[in-house]
Amino acid sequence: MSMILDGKKVAAEKRELLKTRIEELTAKGVTPQLAFLSVGADQASLSYQRSQERACSKVGIITRTIDLTQDTSEDVLLDQLFNLNEDSNIHGILVTLPLPEAINEERVLGAIESSKDVDCLNPINRGRLAFGKAEFLPATPAGIVSLLEAYEISLTGKHVVILGRGKAVGWPLAQILLRKEKMGNATVTVCHSRSGDLVRYAKDADILVAAIGKANFVGPEYVGKDQVVIDAGINGIETPQGWKMVGDVDFQRVSDIVNAITPVPGGVGPMTVAMLLANVTAAAERRLL
Amino acid sequence: MSMILDGKKVAAEKRELLKTRIEELTAKGVTPQLAFLSVGADQASLSYQRSQERACSKVGIITRTIDLTQDTSEDVLLDQLFNLNEDSNIHGILVTLPLPEAINEERVLGAIESSKDVDCLNPINRGRLAFGKAEFLPATPAGIVSLLEAYEISLTGKHVVILGRGKAVGWPLAQILLRKEKMGNATVTVCHSRSGDLVRYAKDADILVAAIGKANFVGPEYVGKDQVVIDAGINGIETPQGWKMVGDVDFQRVSDIVNAITPVPGGVGPMTVAMLLANVTAAAERRLL
Repeated sequence: MSMILDGKKVAAEKRELLKTRIEELTAKGVTPQLAFLSVGADQASLSYQRSQERACSKVGIITRTIDLTQDTSEDVLLDQLFNLNEDSNIHGILVTLPLPEAINEERVLGAIESSKDVDCLNPINRGRLAFGKAEFLPATPAGIVSLLEAYEISLTGKHVVILGRGKAVGWPLAQILLRKEKMGNATVTVCHSRSGDLVRYAKDADILVAAIGKANFVGPEYVGKDQVVIDAGINGIETPQGWKMVGDVDFQRVSDIVNAITPVPGGVGPMTVAMLLANVTAAAERRLL
Repeated sequence: MSMILDGKKVAAEKRELLKTRIEELTAKGVTPQLAFLSVGADQASLSYQRSQERACSKVGIITRTIDLTQDTSEDVLLDQLFNLNEDSNIHGILVTLPLPEAINEERVLGAIESSKDVDCLNPINRGRLAFGKAEFLPATPAGIVSLLEAYEISLTGKHVVILGRGKAVGWPLAQILLRKEKMGNATVTVCHSRSGDLVRYAKDADILVAAIGKANFVGPEYVGKDQVVIDAGINGIETPQGWKMVGDVDFQRVSDIVNAITPVPGGVGPMTVAMLLANVTAAAERRLL
């Protein structure tokens, strides 16, 4: 049996530390506040948003939620965003993606005030990410790095193979892992749907990250016994027992082979939320400087 | 003997096409103009700048050169840059890097007007690069892609291994090659000084790109017979016959092994300059739209 990288446990420890920092902030008159802004979000996105709101509430972060209807114009959305940018009570802003097609996503994300961009959505911050200069690291890649750090799994000189080049995980994770920092200095390979023989690349990994959004896609043929497998997938599937959340990795068949693996749920997911809470807290702390 | 990817020839063809476009622009009253802005640049940088100025002149692009002394303050530099931003005769701006340590490089590059950022130096454009939305592609990576295209070497599904994670070549090239476009869709591995066994990664490449800045670093042990080798290195070395420019690849010992290779000089270098000229021309054409 391989080692389970317990994101739920590590995240809980991180949240405890955050609570103390948030209490100190609140005592100084600043309570961290995170705003959620969505337009025509589907049920799954809203449900995920609600779970984030609950997580905020548990550590003492106030949330404000603005869910706009599908037919909202870009101007109205931008007005709402500008209000949040200017509101000194708000420390972090999350825009739920994707936005409706009629809205220019890049323009909207580019309008997020940099100091409140707690999930690194603004293209300017994205650009800075690769140079170690983003205001905040995006939550999911930061959560993955933080989980590896908690288990003292070094990245320097390791070959990290990332399946998926998406904006939320694969792409920013590659940027972060390549930086010349303690939790960086990895050799990074990014694979995707057009890569052809994914197994060839995956098997060469020291650390394999799955972020492709396909339920149970990564089977035993992708992995080797010394590997660390990070599953960033969140997929809902129907089973005879009802709806179930599974990752991109076929945990049942892979977990016995590899050296260490994250479960879904309870792996990357809780770490993502913990990183988001940490970024909001840090944003509020910077306000006091 | 492998195929020589003749950047000098391809660049010359591209320059001929540019001349026609520039004549048409000039006939319409718009002559493309590129500004060079440097602070305390060393002799090698200035010499490179002069060669770019000559290349501009040959195709009909006007140049303006502002070489500031080493002790120039950031404010004075920014003033010069703002003047260039506002000057409607200027279509492209190149800031010579690195800037002196006392100057905040990111702030200066971030002040380059986006529509004039012909080498994609502004961090905002850098951020957009990965999403296929930069105003212009940075010249060296664009030159590499253009050279491969000229020789009908497809990238889709190919494993491109990049030695070097630098801002000028390795990093932006990785961003470009991962995009979902005709000359993209590669599987990309980025290696660097902390990667450990570089030979292991290099040998697995379909296309190997050297961008590490070490003369003749890549020897026969790095390559295989079916590989395409792209040498983005420009290194000056002293020989008994005097100063000589060589690449990061030991051309003499590697060129007989691989399938195709770029020489230095005459490979990536002229393509870089051609791409820069093309970006300035495109910037001027957009002004007419």
